[in-house]
Amino acid sequence: MTVLVFVDPAHPDGRLADPLSPQLSVLDQGLTRGDGVFESALYKGGSVRKLEMHLARLAVSAETLDLTIPPADAWRAAVKTAVEEYDAAARPGEEPAESVVKLIATRGPESSAAGSPHGTAWVTVSPAPALGQRQRETGVDVLLLDRGYDSTVAERAPWLLMGAKTLSYAVNMAALRYARAQGADDVIFTSSDGRVLEGPTSTVLLATRMQDADGNEVKRLITPTLETGILPGTTQGAIFAAAQEAGWELGYGPVVPSDLRAATAVWLVSSVRLLTPVNSLDGEAIGTDAELTAELTAMVNRVS
Amino acid sequence: MTVLVFVDPAHPDGRLADPLSPQLSVLDQGLTRGDGVFESALYKGGSVRKLEMHLARLAVSAETLDLTIPPADAWRAAVKTAVEEYDAAARPGEEPAESVVKLIATRGPESSAAGSPHGTAWVTVSPAPALGQRQRETGVDVLLLDRGYDSTVAERAPWLLMGAKTLSYAVNMAALRYARAQGADDVIFTSSDGRVLEGPTSTVLLATRMQDADGNEVKRLITPTLETGILPGTTQGAIFAAAQEAGWELGYGPVVPSDLRAATAVWLVSSVRLLTPVNSLDGEAIGTDAELTAELTAMVNRVS
Repeated sequence: MTVLVFVDPAHPDGRLADPLSPQLSVLDQGLTRGDGVFESALYKGGSVRKLEMHLARLAVSAETLDLTIPPADAWRAAVKTAVEEYDAAARPGEEPAESVVKLIATRGPESSAAGSPHGTAWVTVSPAPALGQRQRETGVDVLLLDRGYDSTVAERAPWLLMGAKTLSYAVNMAALRYARAQGADDVIFTSSDGRVLEGPTSTVLLATRMQDADGNEVKRLITPTLETGILPGTTQGAIFAAAQEAGWELGYGPVVPSDLRAATAVWLVSSVRLLTPVNSLDGEAIGTDAELTAELTAMVNRVS
Repeated sequence: MTVLVFVDPAHPDGRLADPLSPQLSVLDQGLTRGDGVFESALYKGGSVRKLEMHLARLAVSAETLDLTIPPADAWRAAVKTAVEEYDAAARPGEEPAESVVKLIATRGPESSAAGSPHGTAWVTVSPAPALGQRQRETGVDVLLLDRGYDSTVAERAPWLLMGAKTLSYAVNMAALRYARAQGADDVIFTSSDGRVLEGPTSTVLLATRMQDADGNEVKRLITPTLETGILPGTTQGAIFAAAQEAGWELGYGPVVPSDLRAATAVWLVSSVRLLTPVNSLDGEAIGTDAELTAELTAMVNRVS
């Protein structure tokens, strides 16, 4: 079941629509040009997790694309309407445990009516994919694939939209299909100069257990630096904040593939699948650590 | 005015629909993931130019994306229905001189009905943009912009979908916006290793007038090699075939920016705007040649 609510200035609470009926123009540039932005948030236990972080990132993506989108309040109202309708439509006792709230904004039809303050914008709520919930438990086998860009491109070429979450995801989807055709589950992109970047729909985290000068254990959590042009992970951000409070050391590094192989454990993190252990890289097993996974998962589950 | 015809197995001639009404699901992966392919052809003087070349390239793009699309016959029938309807709808004497036929195929909604032989597929016909017709006469000022990829990436990274014409065009559109914000009209992408690639919606051609050993003039026409991962241009292909018949020398080169500055003339070619002279690169005038432009334009106009 999916619930659909358009963000529409004429309907302050959002405009409910039937997601199974056609709702979009074939001339919408979100479709003809992949010209739009999106966010996916987890809806669980009656709360849309990290909604403000998603709204903030959506605004940054839109700014990168010179795209006017509805104000945050209009999104908040549409999300509220959508989850209320979603809950009301579920049979009692049969509510999905985990659902996805998607926020999408496009540039609208090519010759859209003058006076429209923004393009097309809507919110959907639907059950979270079962596959992701399983992978969170089992872990994933990952291929390292070249993203084609070097790690300094974001700074010198803003027109490449690095760090914006756009609707132009054909390459991300193709990389996942390629990995599955090779018997793997997921992908970690590397830059052409050999840096670890991100997954097609996730951020990379790695942890190392070390000892300090007094022989006490220190846990260090690392994620690739944003300067490589990757998307700033909202879940990574929330985990880092919680891990710092819990006494972990944090690092934003240039990360190379050998760092992943040397780490105590590696995870892919994202808003809906949450923290997913990486079991192998290019067919070779790497370190995993059930205790660290449990500790970080507890942090993720406390994020609101 | 736009005419819309869906390619639909239940309607062998295609299914006419109202382009001004919503026609697409918000769950279509063409929209949520930019996951689809397209072609744009010129409709002029009662004929859809190079339709077979466009259908062939559409099929290659779809194969690159592991995407099942309707067979060529179904596209031909839908195009025929669309242009007939388009002509019938025009007021006598007010038919647009030049129109665009767009063919689009997507992966369809995420959980589409079992048994559907392909995703969503449709044809639109609409008037050609006036801007392109003007630029063909006036020429364009061009910025050279880094595409971020090196010129060998296509071979080693098929998941990057180089050479496929996908709906994920956000970067192409962003590059054009960037150029316009700098006062230019268009873009020629270069690779990170300094090769000339293509425009966001066009192929690059350059010509040089030379003399052979006997002092006779030789005209040489060059386009960047496809090995750089660029889209094979249907208009470039048609021009090359005609130029060869007319006695020009042809070359597929590694091209670098200094080649553009040293050339007798440079053009951007595409199916709808056709042959467009480049007047300047990064704000500096380059060579133009009205006689060569006229000769090549005559070749383009003979393409059927």
